[in-house]
Amino acid sequence: MTVIDSPLPDKEREIAGSALQATLVDLLDLSLVAKQAHWNLYGPRFRSIHLQLDEVVTTARDYADVVAERAAALGVSPDGRTTTITATSGVPAFAPGWTKDVDAVEALVRAFAAVIGRVRERIEETGPADAVTQDLLIGLTADLEKQSWMFQAENRR
Amino acid sequence: MTVIDSPLPDKEREIAGSALQATLVDLLDLSLVAKQAHWNLYGPRFRSIHLQLDEVVTTARDYADVVAERAAALGVSPDGRTTTITATSGVPAFAPGWTKDVDAVEALVRAFAAVIGRVRERIEETGPADAVTQDLLIGLTADLEKQSWMFQAENRR
Amino acid sequence: MTVIDSPLPDKEREIAGSALQATLVDLLDLSLVAKQAHWNLYGPRFRSIHLQLDEVVTTARDYADVVAERAAALGVSPDGRTTTITATSGVPAFAPGWTKDVDAVEALVRAFAAVIGRVRERIEETGPADAVTQDLLIGLTADLEKQSWMFQAENRR
Amino acid sequence: MTVIDSPLPDKEREIAGSALQATLVDLLDLSLVAKQAHWNLYGPRFRSIHLQLDEVVTTARDYADVVAERAAALGVSPDGRTTTITATSGVPAFAPGWTKDVDAVEALVRAFAAVIGRVRERIEETGPADAVTQDLLIGLTADLEKQSWMFQAENRR
Amino acid sequence: MTVIDSPLPDKEREIAGSALQATLVDLLDLSLVAKQAHWNLYGPRFRSIHLQLDEVVTTARDYADVVAERAAALGVSPDGRTTTITATSGVPAFAPGWTKDVDAVEALVRAFAAVIGRVRERIEETGPADAVTQDLLIGLTADLEKQSWMFQAENRR
Amino acid sequence: MTVIDSPLPDKEREIAGSALQATLVDLLDLSLVAKQAHWNLYGPRFRSIHLQLDEVVTTARDYADVVAERAAALGVSPDGRTTTITATSGVPAFAPGWTKDVDAVEALVRAFAAVIGRVRERIEETGPADAVTQDLLIGLTADLEKQSWMFQAENRR
Amino acid sequence: MTVIDSPLPDKEREIAGSALQATLVDLLDLSLVAKQAHWNLYGPRFRSIHLQLDEVVTTARDYADVVAERAAALGVSPDGRTTTITATSGVPAFAPGWTKDVDAVEALVRAFAAVIGRVRERIEETGPADAVTQDLLIGLTADLEKQSWMFQAENRR
Amino acid sequence: MTVIDSPLPDKEREIAGSALQATLVDLLDLSLVAKQAHWNLYGPRFRSIHLQLDEVVTTARDYADVVAERAAALGVSPDGRTTTITATSGVPAFAPGWTKDVDAVEALVRAFAAVIGRVRERIEETGPADAVTQDLLIGLTADLEKQSWMFQAENRR
Amino acid sequence: MTVIDSPLPDKEREIAGSALQATLVDLLDLSLVAKQAHWNLYGPRFRSIHLQLDEVVTTARDYADVVAERAAALGVSPDGRTTTITATSGVPAFAPGWTKDVDAVEALVRAFAAVIGRVRERIEETGPADAVTQDLLIGLTADLEKQSWMFQAENRR
Amino acid sequence: MTVIDSPLPDKEREIAGSALQATLVDLLDLSLVAKQAHWNLYGPRFRSIHLQLDEVVTTARDYADVVAERAAALGVSPDGRTTTITATSGVPAFAPGWTKDVDAVEALVRAFAAVIGRVRERIEETGPADAVTQDLLIGLTADLEKQSWMFQAENRR
Amino acid sequence: MTVIDSPLPDKEREIAGSALQATLVDLLDLSLVAKQAHWNLYGPRFRSIHLQLDEVVTTARDYADVVAERAAALGVSPDGRTTTITATSGVPAFAPGWTKDVDAVEALVRAFAAVIGRVRERIEETGPADAVTQDLLIGLTADLEKQSWMFQAENRR
Amino acid sequence: MTVIDSPLPDKEREIAGSALQATLVDLLDLSLVAKQAHWNLYGPRFRSIHLQLDEVVTTARDYADVVAERAAALGVSPDGRTTTITATSGVPAFAPGWTKDVDAVEALVRAFAAVIGRVRERIEETGPADAVTQDLLIGLTADLEKQSWMFQAENRR
Repeated sequence: MTVIDSPLPDKEREIAGSALQATLVDLLDLSLVAKQAHWNLYGPRFRSIHLQLDEVVTTARDYADVVAERAAALGVSPDGRTTTITATSGVPAFAPGWTKDVDAVEALVRAFAAVIGRVRERIEETGPADAVTQDLLIGLTADLEKQSWMFQAENRR
Repeated sequence: MTVIDSPLPDKEREIAGSALQATLVDLLDLSLVAKQAHWNLYGPRFRSIHLQLDEVVTTARDYADVVAERAAALGVSPDGRTTTITATSGVPAFAPGWTKDVDAVEALVRAFAAVIGRVRERIEETGPADAVTQDLLIGLTADLEKQSWMFQAENRR
Repeated sequence: MTVIDSPLPDKEREIAGSALQATLVDLLDLSLVAKQAHWNLYGPRFRSIHLQLDEVVTTARDYADVVAERAAALGVSPDGRTTTITATSGVPAFAPGWTKDVDAVEALVRAFAAVIGRVRERIEETGPADAVTQDLLIGLTADLEKQSWMFQAENRR
Repeated sequence: MTVIDSPLPDKEREIAGSALQATLVDLLDLSLVAKQAHWNLYGPRFRSIHLQLDEVVTTARDYADVVAERAAALGVSPDGRTTTITATSGVPAFAPGWTKDVDAVEALVRAFAAVIGRVRERIEETGPADAVTQDLLIGLTADLEKQSWMFQAENRR
Repeated sequence: MTVIDSPLPDKEREIAGSALQATLVDLLDLSLVAKQAHWNLYGPRFRSIHLQLDEVVTTARDYADVVAERAAALGVSPDGRTTTITATSGVPAFAPGWTKDVDAVEALVRAFAAVIGRVRERIEETGPADAVTQDLLIGLTADLEKQSWMFQAENRR
Repeated sequence: MTVIDSPLPDKEREIAGSALQATLVDLLDLSLVAKQAHWNLYGPRFRSIHLQLDEVVTTARDYADVVAERAAALGVSPDGRTTTITATSGVPAFAPGWTKDVDAVEALVRAFAAVIGRVRERIEETGPADAVTQDLLIGLTADLEKQSWMFQAENRR
Repeated sequence: MTVIDSPLPDKEREIAGSALQATLVDLLDLSLVAKQAHWNLYGPRFRSIHLQLDEVVTTARDYADVVAERAAALGVSPDGRTTTITATSGVPAFAPGWTKDVDAVEALVRAFAAVIGRVRERIEETGPADAVTQDLLIGLTADLEKQSWMFQAENRR
Repeated sequence: MTVIDSPLPDKEREIAGSALQATLVDLLDLSLVAKQAHWNLYGPRFRSIHLQLDEVVTTARDYADVVAERAAALGVSPDGRTTTITATSGVPAFAPGWTKDVDAVEALVRAFAAVIGRVRERIEETGPADAVTQDLLIGLTADLEKQSWMFQAENRR
Repeated sequence: MTVIDSPLPDKEREIAGSALQATLVDLLDLSLVAKQAHWNLYGPRFRSIHLQLDEVVTTARDYADVVAERAAALGVSPDGRTTTITATSGVPAFAPGWTKDVDAVEALVRAFAAVIGRVRERIEETGPADAVTQDLLIGLTADLEKQSWMFQAENRR
Repeated sequence: MTVIDSPLPDKEREIAGSALQATLVDLLDLSLVAKQAHWNLYGPRFRSIHLQLDEVVTTARDYADVVAERAAALGVSPDGRTTTITATSGVPAFAPGWTKDVDAVEALVRAFAAVIGRVRERIEETGPADAVTQDLLIGLTADLEKQSWMFQAENRR
Repeated sequence: MTVIDSPLPDKEREIAGSALQATLVDLLDLSLVAKQAHWNLYGPRFRSIHLQLDEVVTTARDYADVVAERAAALGVSPDGRTTTITATSGVPAFAPGWTKDVDAVEALVRAFAAVIGRVRERIEETGPADAVTQDLLIGLTADLEKQSWMFQAENRR
Repeated sequence: MTVIDSPLPDKEREIAGSALQATLVDLLDLSLVAKQAHWNLYGPRFRSIHLQLDEVVTTARDYADVVAERAAALGVSPDGRTTTITATSGVPAFAPGWTKDVDAVEALVRAFAAVIGRVRERIEETGPADAVTQDLLIGLTADLEKQSWMFQAENRR
């Protein structure tokens, strides 16, 4: 059963839907990881990184909404429940407890690298299936790579 | 190790910290459940409930931030990672797939009931330990019970 | 019949509900009295008191809404109809016709005193029944006592 | 005694003043009735009607202020006290207790019909006495009839 | 010569144009008088009346613009030059030098009375000639009479 | 069948309804003509007229909404579909293709003249039938004649 | 004759220009249809759908402007006149008179389906001719398919 | 008599006071002249100059207020009444009736030149008497000369 | 003598009044200390801490106002004069001259610790005397402890 | 030691630095005195003067910041600690306890006179040393003298 | 050495980096040329073109930032120094001195043509190397071509 | 040839014009240098300095506009073209490539020192020629020296 008549044929809808579902999970986990770092941070760059992490949260949450509603618009039910995130996220685990600023930045750099790598693959896959989905993922990549640069520049000595 | 000198003695910090950590998890899961319903909704009340669910998300996210930073201010590291949410949340599981409006409202009513019951217990527990934490949980309960009323009124025939 | 499952047991709901209903009536009447004074005022302090009275109206209306919706959230139907206000308000009657500024200020001081006295009693009563309702009434008292001070200072020679 | 030199002769002032006083009472009662419905509502259209009712409250309160200050500007003391509302309002009584959405809409439709009928008569009466008062009542009627249409459209099957 | 094709026949245009030109001059002079009082005021109500006078200035300037552009829209060249104001204004002269608050209020009451009397005559005259101009003057009168009431109430003992 | 109980008797509703329907069509066509000129304009006044034309669009669209909802409030179904506009509009046809600034201004002047002439007749017709509709058309005429003046002044040599 | 030196060669300009002209007409008609439904709606979802339809109007009007100005930027004169809309629109006709909410939603779903189908074809056609035009149509499709999903979800039982 | 204890000795106060009074009159007249041109303008630059003239009005009004209140702060009663403006203004007379754009610009250029010349002399005179007044006049000159340049550039062929 | 009739009996007023007076002095001194650090700061975290210190100033100033006006509302004259601050403040002295970032952060951590310790005692003392004052101090403590955490996290290695 | 390379030679830096330090202390004390009056005020002008005093606070705080940061920019460490204010302020002491409105205004008039007299001397002293510092003090004097006038006008009988 | 791990392989990074560097220089020069014209303009369209040129400046500056930060995100150091602009810009030189409006428009048309031609080539080159960079350049082209159209339309006779 | 009649005699215009032209070039180059640093920055203070550099850009761009338009107002054509900047700027060259935060701060400190030194000389030169230009340069120096202090404080150990 589906809620809507999909604008895509079955095969294309499946390709685009899978890419969107996987991206949704990555973004929701990225938002949780960034908040975790935001709360557990310490060190001489505390205030600066604390604020920067909330920009990651905002980006991840906003794109998660766009991605999930794009899936719905294609007739694919998006799944952003915590059990699904835990089971399928591509974001590296974040260590528990207080986190020094340099380590938090490093963890975010790794998280961005993982998500960017996965989303770039999906840009390739979705191109022939749905130009709209592909365009959405290209815009997301631009934002992720910009934030990734800023965190890398922050930790570069 | 702790990042800060807690304003509370050990025992009181532990009581308040546990209450805050459990509340953080409940709120993060509530925000994910409300978003899940927001995206998978259908039925004649789609637009109205779709918007109402985003108000739940905003409340849950904003209070999660306040609660986590209150824990940090007490010298207790907050844990809002997805694995922790999956393992310890008190919010009932939300069914996968498209969800009819009446069912989504019902699920939210159950989620509110569960969270409110747990937070009300913590108001009792934290009172003697930390008046500041207790006051925060009282304010949270006011918001949760207001939203719970609205969802119940929506489904009442 | 009730619209919602109350978060409180019957006795506590009744105590909190009665306090909220009585406060709702007092606030609605206070808003009408302040508007009456706002329109019928004259004297050398006309503009200043005219504006100050609208701040009372705003406070009374905003808290009336909060109080009524708290009652609803407890499963208690709030009653703010004009016949109920006329029958049960604790605000002293305001004289008809044009009102000199000094007399309007004096009337407001008496109105505040009456409402504050009644709300302070309800803070005592609701404490054991519902911490959320009590907290709401404490916040209301802070606002009422601040405005009461300002009107008293205005008439003090 | 009057506070100001009226811009109108005695007879015209009396005609306009009576129309404004009666309209003031109708609007204040309409605002109380709409709030009563706003708080006691339930049913599948809860959220939508709950918000719509607050638009009625805003319109009624804003016009009540304009109407009362127009009376004052004509040298006629406006009376918006609760006892006066109870004694002279033309708005049909609203039933106590929880109210189903369809019934609340129906009650508002009746309230609008009563107020519109009365204000339309006053447009006729005030025309020869004071063009300014008449123009104000015409503007009020435009708003009331627009909101009346929306509530009727809502309940039309 | 005229800049535009008037929407009115010659006679009607002349009637409406004369009323608008006379009103323009009255409003520009009222704005200058209110500013003069705003700057030269003293006495225990200084701050309150100082601010109130600027509301008169705003009203007079805004309506002067509307009135002048209505004249232009009828193909009648508006004249708001200082020599024209000096020669044709209907606003009573304002005394030079520092002005006590009670006297400034009194002077404004007289100025409002003069302008309102003249504009009310023009409402009568313009009705048969141009309903649009008449409606504009009715709206202006509502504002002038409201401000007149406030200044009278301020000086009433 | 009608959606609402009209506040007007049948004959008056028909008069007001016809005037509103005809005005709706004129305004929608005026908005399309102004946009057409906005897009196809060239010449040394391009930027200035390009912006001015969008003010016409905004006025026409906003009043079209007010006019259509006034018809609905009277129980008359408004018809703003493209076939109805094409069949019944009183706005002169606008030539296809690129349009020099002086010609676009001239075309707008003609369009305003046509619409103003028709709306002024409807002010006469609706007065005895419905003062509210008449007042709305008077307000519309004020805006149309102001904009008409500005376009005429622009092309006047 | 053309107003500007096109950045595209003749053939590419013609392909892109045709796609833009056809899309302009579809969007203008969609905006008129959505307004028609907005005004003629009735039924228990009146307020919710009434507001939702205005979001369609805003989207359609905004994109119509972007599309027409893109045509102009390519040196192609856009044609958005009512006769052109009537003659060439791809939006299904909307029935006259009052419209029940469920039927209005259904009509919008059909309108979206028609426009989306046509725009998706133009994405294919314009790709080789002008990447800028194609990118614009991809962005438009994202918005149309999102709104289409919401209307479908609303009517899904 | 004076309202305040002047911060300046008598001679310095007289010098600064005279400069401020003369500047006040020039600015009030400039604001009236600019409005006159704003209303009576025609020609191909109508819209552009119409808007530009209102920027002159805003500057002249705002600085008139600053200048008059500076006089008051020095214990010098400012005089901005229409008879005083007519008698003492240094702004060249503006011709009555409709004014072509090129002529309006030319008249403004002459008005600016006259006022700037007079204010520049006052900068010299007030320097030794009151640095605060001088600084105010320097700031005014910066604004006047900027606007003067723009009007000159507009008419330069 | 007192300006107002206190809502509290003498003993309770004295307890609450003393707590509020002492808190007022602490907060005013904290605001001066934070500004001193804001101006004299240097080191690699200059910009970040410079901005963070102004957030302390804002919090301290805003709560000082609330605390002083609460005292006034209880009929207790607040004393925030510099001699009183110097004589009774509980904030540790801040060293004169330029201050390295790490030292400024350390000084703020000590200042927060001192103020928090004193305010927490007053929460205990005022509870039985005045629930409103206690609630205000609990809210203040929440803010102070949050800011204290952030400064500690900043200096933690 | 100094944090920065001063843009001024030693002697000029010392002159400007001394003037800025003394002004900083005067402004901080003025802000505390105005707040003290704001809180302890009573009498028929309570509301009006209460608000006016907060404008003094805002001016004094904002200029204190500008003055202190100008000192820092010259390489001079500013000292705004409470002990420094108590020891070196030029503002007359403000009496403790409740203060009648007329007396509060009088005290502010004296405070302004003292600060203005001192700052005017510093304008003379700093001119040859640093034009930037002098310009800052001239701007400050303009604001202080404007507010001084307003308080004097308020108490003038 | 590079600051970050590029998300692209070496060859792709070089292609995208070169395109971005060249575009950065073009945009910075375009912003300087548009400002030069903005300041040196004269003629009857002065105000209109003066404002239009600042829109070019805003577009060029905003895209320069996006383009430079995209290069950085790819690990390519952007170079926007004046010597680099002078040496490598593709924007035609702008003549020194005062510039007549028609000539300034012509110069901008040429500048747009040059930049658009170069950017369109880079869209082709970057497609296979980096879809994100290509998408950015497509968006830039849309804006440049829209502004180019407007300047061409302005000068078209 | 000049566009306007200069308010200054030839010699004074030349002096002021030269100072403004040289300042324009310095500010444009400063804005380019600050952007270059903004893009190429790395190190532990990346985010903080990245943001701080954009404040320099804003200051430099805003003052460049003021300075250039002041020159134009004096009848002196400003020249802000890239070749002129390269040839005549007084800002030290900024090294190409990625830049560590400490080095970027150091470079900005040197740039500020150079520009401040040059502008301070121009304050001396322009005083006798044009008080308005001098006042503008004094205001600019205040801003530059404030930002210079902040960068110095940032790098001071």
